[in-house]
Amino acid sequence: MKEGDVMIGSQVGRVIESKNSAFPVGVYCVANMGWTTHFISNGKELNPLPSEWPESLPRSLALGTVGMPGLTAYFGFLEICNPKEGDVVLVNCAAGAVGSIVGQIAKLKGCKVVGSAGSDDKIQFLKDIGFDEAFNYKKVGSLEEALKKASPEGYDCYFENVGGKFSDAAVPQMKDFGRISVCGVISMYNDAVPPSGPYIQPLILFKQLRMEGFIVTRWKDRFVEGQKQLLQWVLEGKVKYREHITKGFENMPKGFMGMLKGENTGKAIIQV
Amino acid sequence: MKEGDVMIGSQVGRVIESKNSAFPVGVYCVANMGWTTHFISNGKELNPLPSEWPESLPRSLALGTVGMPGLTAYFGFLEICNPKEGDVVLVNCAAGAVGSIVGQIAKLKGCKVVGSAGSDDKIQFLKDIGFDEAFNYKKVGSLEEALKKASPEGYDCYFENVGGKFSDAAVPQMKDFGRISVCGVISMYNDAVPPSGPYIQPLILFKQLRMEGFIVTRWKDRFVEGQKQLLQWVLEGKVKYREHITKGFENMPKGFMGMLKGENTGKAIIQV
Repeated sequence: MKEGDVMIGSQVGRVIESKNSAFPVGVYCVANMGWTTHFISNGKELNPLPSEWPESLPRSLALGTVGMPGLTAYFGFLEICNPKEGDVVLVNCAAGAVGSIVGQIAKLKGCKVVGSAGSDDKIQFLKDIGFDEAFNYKKVGSLEEALKKASPEGYDCYFENVGGKFSDAAVPQMKDFGRISVCGVISMYNDAVPPSGPYIQPLILFKQLRMEGFIVTRWKDRFVEGQKQLLQWVLEGKVKYREHITKGFENMPKGFMGMLKGENTGKAIIQV
Repeated sequence: MKEGDVMIGSQVGRVIESKNSAFPVGVYCVANMGWTTHFISNGKELNPLPSEWPESLPRSLALGTVGMPGLTAYFGFLEICNPKEGDVVLVNCAAGAVGSIVGQIAKLKGCKVVGSAGSDDKIQFLKDIGFDEAFNYKKVGSLEEALKKASPEGYDCYFENVGGKFSDAAVPQMKDFGRISVCGVISMYNDAVPPSGPYIQPLILFKQLRMEGFIVTRWKDRFVEGQKQLLQWVLEGKVKYREHITKGFENMPKGFMGMLKGENTGKAIIQV
């Protein structure tokens, strides 16, 4: 993040007063209105929860598994990695809001899934939700060896959330014609000067790899499709979720900092 | 190239004796048989020249514009860069056997084409065959500024033959959703230890770029289609060619070294 960047996140809010018939009192909406308890909207930035939303399902999932992180996983993985049955898929930040859904979608598509995360609790979570292999990158002696051990044959798909040194270890282990979907480079966001690493171009060439970056809004015209599919998978129990809930508006900064430090598993949620 | 790699190149040969009815005496074929005046084949590795080949056309074009370099340009550019009318296309090694065809195909598709090459003679050649902008990378003070001047708005497509420092200057000037086709990294082939450069992943992410490497044989099932199209364009005068002909079998090593040193414009040919 650059100085001056604002991180407002998303909220689920309930309409408590309305002069807009499209949003009657009592309706729940997702919006990006900042760290605030109340806000006024002309309706333009409000996205009502899907009408199929059952009373039993936490509405906070509209910020996670059935919200932007879910859509990021759904489109960013399926459209860019183009996974096929039997493919070996690598995901890092695998216990996060996006990574945990990527891994589960990969399993639904018949892939073998390898995940990396930063605590033993997260590794247990990954195994609970069906990852074939998972390792704690903070505990392995060599990232390269951990990746080799998890899949000696290499990787067909790589859903990239980390960049930097992780990428250096992973890209050489891609199989020919592998697909790399660049969703994030969290290890590099704090670098004032972009760091250097080995040139990736020779690997891209000789292995005939495809690497593509994306920002999820490029598929905004298909968000409804994605949200319906994710909601269905959640209701059928095919996609499991874990939320990291911080209670109390006053604890929001702590929750946010904890998320950046990797303390959360699944989507970081503030409950007010 | 690694020590021990063998560079045999391709040849056009005439059948002078035959026990294979598929290849009667007098037929011309392309093959990869090494640096030799005669060879014996069971027919498996022989590719006859297209039957449409007119007597007036140099048969050596089957090694260049209507051969592997042409097919490399045709498929590697069209399939991976996916050019659209009005796109700005960047090609380096633009006066080479592949680059000069990429630029001309880009013009046929309604693109603006910028080329880089290493001598003033080559730059003149690029202008003669229709490049909109061309610069001698050995003479510009700053590669970055030369690229900015040639297209202040940036680039939609980048056909990469060089890698390394050229890539460092070019990739940051890609437009959002740009496509990079990695055909070669000639600046890096001699490096025993892969060199380091700025990580490309953040640019790939934030600009939503796609970068893909290829080896032309992946389209071998479509070579006939590509060859027919290239031959047609050459006969219609829409794709122009220049060959760098070295005469005499004994001058072959000199011709080969000259090609590596960048002395040739267009395909390097040995005439025996």
